[in-house]
Amino acid sequence: MAADHRMEKIVSLCKRRGFIFPGSEIYGGLAGTFDYGPLGVALKKNIENAWWRMFVDARDDMYGLDSAILMHPRVWEASGHVGGFHDPLVSDEKTGKRYRADHLLEEAGIDPSGMSLAQMGEALQSGGVKSPEGNALSAPQQFNMMFKTSVGSVEGGDMAVYLRPETAQGMFVNFKNLVDTYHPKLPFGMAQIGRAFRNEIAPRDFIFRVRELEIMEFEYFIREGQWEEQFDYWRKQMQAWFASLGFAPDDIREVEIPDGERAHYSKRTIDFHYRYPHKFDELGGLAYRTDFDLKNHIAQSGTDLAYLDPVTNEKVVPHVLEPTFGLGRHLLAVLVAAYTEDELGGELRTLLKFPSHLAPVKAAVFPLLKNKPELVAKAREVYLELKKEIPQVVWDDNGNIGKRYRRQDEIGTPLCITIDFDTLGEKPELKDSVTVRDRDTGAQKRFSVSDAIARVREGI
Amino acid sequence: MAADHRMEKIVSLCKRRGFIFPGSEIYGGLAGTFDYGPLGVALKKNIENAWWRMFVDARDDMYGLDSAILMHPRVWEASGHVGGFHDPLVSDEKTGKRYRADHLLEEAGIDPSGMSLAQMGEALQSGGVKSPEGNALSAPQQFNMMFKTSVGSVEGGDMAVYLRPETAQGMFVNFKNLVDTYHPKLPFGMAQIGRAFRNEIAPRDFIFRVRELEIMEFEYFIREGQWEEQFDYWRKQMQAWFASLGFAPDDIREVEIPDGERAHYSKRTIDFHYRYPHKFDELGGLAYRTDFDLKNHIAQSGTDLAYLDPVTNEKVVPHVLEPTFGLGRHLLAVLVAAYTEDELGGELRTLLKFPSHLAPVKAAVFPLLKNKPELVAKAREVYLELKKEIPQVVWDDNGNIGKRYRRQDEIGTPLCITIDFDTLGEKPELKDSVTVRDRDTGAQKRFSVSDAIARVREGI
Repeated sequence: MAADHRMEKIVSLCKRRGFIFPGSEIYGGLAGTFDYGPLGVALKKNIENAWWRMFVDARDDMYGLDSAILMHPRVWEASGHVGGFHDPLVSDEKTGKRYRADHLLEEAGIDPSGMSLAQMGEALQSGGVKSPEGNALSAPQQFNMMFKTSVGSVEGGDMAVYLRPETAQGMFVNFKNLVDTYHPKLPFGMAQIGRAFRNEIAPRDFIFRVRELEIMEFEYFIREGQWEEQFDYWRKQMQAWFASLGFAPDDIREVEIPDGERAHYSKRTIDFHYRYPHKFDELGGLAYRTDFDLKNHIAQSGTDLAYLDPVTNEKVVPHVLEPTFGLGRHLLAVLVAAYTEDELGGELRTLLKFPSHLAPVKAAVFPLLKNKPELVAKAREVYLELKKEIPQVVWDDNGNIGKRYRRQDEIGTPLCITIDFDTLGEKPELKDSVTVRDRDTGAQKRFSVSDAIARVREGI
Repeated sequence: MAADHRMEKIVSLCKRRGFIFPGSEIYGGLAGTFDYGPLGVALKKNIENAWWRMFVDARDDMYGLDSAILMHPRVWEASGHVGGFHDPLVSDEKTGKRYRADHLLEEAGIDPSGMSLAQMGEALQSGGVKSPEGNALSAPQQFNMMFKTSVGSVEGGDMAVYLRPETAQGMFVNFKNLVDTYHPKLPFGMAQIGRAFRNEIAPRDFIFRVRELEIMEFEYFIREGQWEEQFDYWRKQMQAWFASLGFAPDDIREVEIPDGERAHYSKRTIDFHYRYPHKFDELGGLAYRTDFDLKNHIAQSGTDLAYLDPVTNEKVVPHVLEPTFGLGRHLLAVLVAAYTEDELGGELRTLLKFPSHLAPVKAAVFPLLKNKPELVAKAREVYLELKKEIPQVVWDDNGNIGKRYRRQDEIGTPLCITIDFDTLGEKPELKDSVTVRDRDTGAQKRFSVSDAIARVREGI
């Protein structure tokens, strides 16, 4: 299956089945925004919950946070975003449409890595690169990617504020609050899942490059001398996390970011790339941010953010490791990893092979026939018993049983439970048993109702 | 306890113990924004999850959604927000500081309900109302409360977009997507929990009136003729929800909003007020929005959003009931309801009497003494066994046992489990038993470890 068709098929399935819709669609859309439908919300929640369980709840050294999207503008001066969170843009000299200079160079087969703005300008010119409309291009200019708005309580004196472009600063700004409240011992971390906004000039690749994104990340505070050992530890933890999502080792690549290409604050960064249909591209990353952030906030805010070691009584500014995980990018990778076309019983089918703990729907319950009240009543009884314990189950009595299986395969439901005439006692020895059908193999086996429920429970 | 002291005490406890911190505090704060610390995140998640379970997962007729904060600007023309989402503001003629005209009137003992802008201006003048700084006031003007930003891909052609001031429109805009995907039968609902932003001129009352808020709400689509019956049904459901959070009936008031004061789209609205320390104030509401929203989106977008009845084959534009719940306001009400000062064993104490299912920490595990390795080892074993099943448990070995109880009382932990010498077999008949101490009564009873764990499990 060609890579680009694969992406198209996933986009189409997501819309058709209620995972993801384009944002503001009835108004022609707003590029780079998406709305998650019922199955998308459920899948997203499952990824978030698994992440929070592994990195926050299961640990003694991690503290959850949920900080505001609107922050004081000086936060972004301290972090370097006001001065440096830029994309290099050129504009079409006729239409005025803006493009990423680095993207145009890549598309022309020229590698822009490490180029300065001036070098990109020269490379565009010497390469004879035109805009996609075929027109001449302006010289590249830096374009700040933060969305700006203003908060006002004084006439004519509104304060410009930004929508946060990352969640990390919320943790640094609350470092002192956490230390004063919990007195944690180094090393320890602060974790959050939240939205961030970037004024991407060219949103693309479905939910991969968007203007409104969600990030799961934590800042892990350490002593400077521990960084290499801790970097290795978190790298392995991230590998374990990716494995828990069912990603094949071959589909993940670790990319060491060389000197001169890392973010201004980082002394070492590894990006984790996933094999997306469009290319291997960033899923998450692990950065050693040194003490860059806390030091800058100390300088800018005048607040003492040093940590008083309870044992040595020394004051230290902790160093920071930052494992970061794009939530939308994770969701896309989970969809890509799950998307399968195969043949079952001589028919082509599409299925999503989600690991059970990520599947938005855990099981579907059917009466074999819709027009037999006794079947429907018994199926309804089983459905309600199951739903009481495991709410992520659905009822389906539409169309014939084969169609229902296909529908559940396509949304990745691991198990389908059918109530048939044997359940009602047509063969007395099978009374009260139901068939449980496996998504991946299509195999059906009979179980008692309670064993069937136990099988669903196992997969959560 | 005076009402205003109560709020001060809650604010102070929230900061001291890591529920809620003022936003961007080290930079002097950004009014109307708050950051949720570890306990605040946990409490918020518990409220959200309980809501989602009751109104979405447990039902067959409700569909989850998570739509983007940034929407096409025409959405807010259709919804009436561009034209009508205003606060009446006056400014101090000397300092330029803006104030809500209606708030100044209220503070001067004048009821502004139902007044036009001009009437407020007259009332301010005839009442001799000055600014809080004692200066003359400008005439009232309408001030749009939506935050504006811009999205750009064409030079000089940036598009103005708003941060959504409510989540409802995300559901209306996706109505057709949902119907095309799920073919639901009327009545059915779309539900979401998400952030919204309002440029409040005077954020106040802690997390009650903020600039960045979270809303839990659903739009329930019905046939016009059903609205009265459905209104009653949802009113009762909301009452049941409030009861499930442990709110005393006396602390909730239902306020019927009279003609002329309802939002422009509503034919009937009940506000649910909670007894906050500052006053009885809005916690949520139930509005009958008629077909206002879908009709306007049909007119503005040119998309057919009519619902084709699968039985009668009629096309209808559904009517809408909207139960809405402020998440931060719920969290504040849960804190207020839980906040208690009493006397236990001759000592004054502060405790949060959360219902167990909302408590951020379900249980704490202590070794009786910190410096006895055999106690610590056994306590650690119990702690890890419990945490494996119920991650929301904590370990505490700081200070004496009395202090630890007080600390857990103050954050509302329902149960404390202590491992003492009897657990280790000092009295052989008590070997492997632990004490379980109840937050509200302070009573301690001995249980086997597995019975103690079962008691924690019951409370989830």
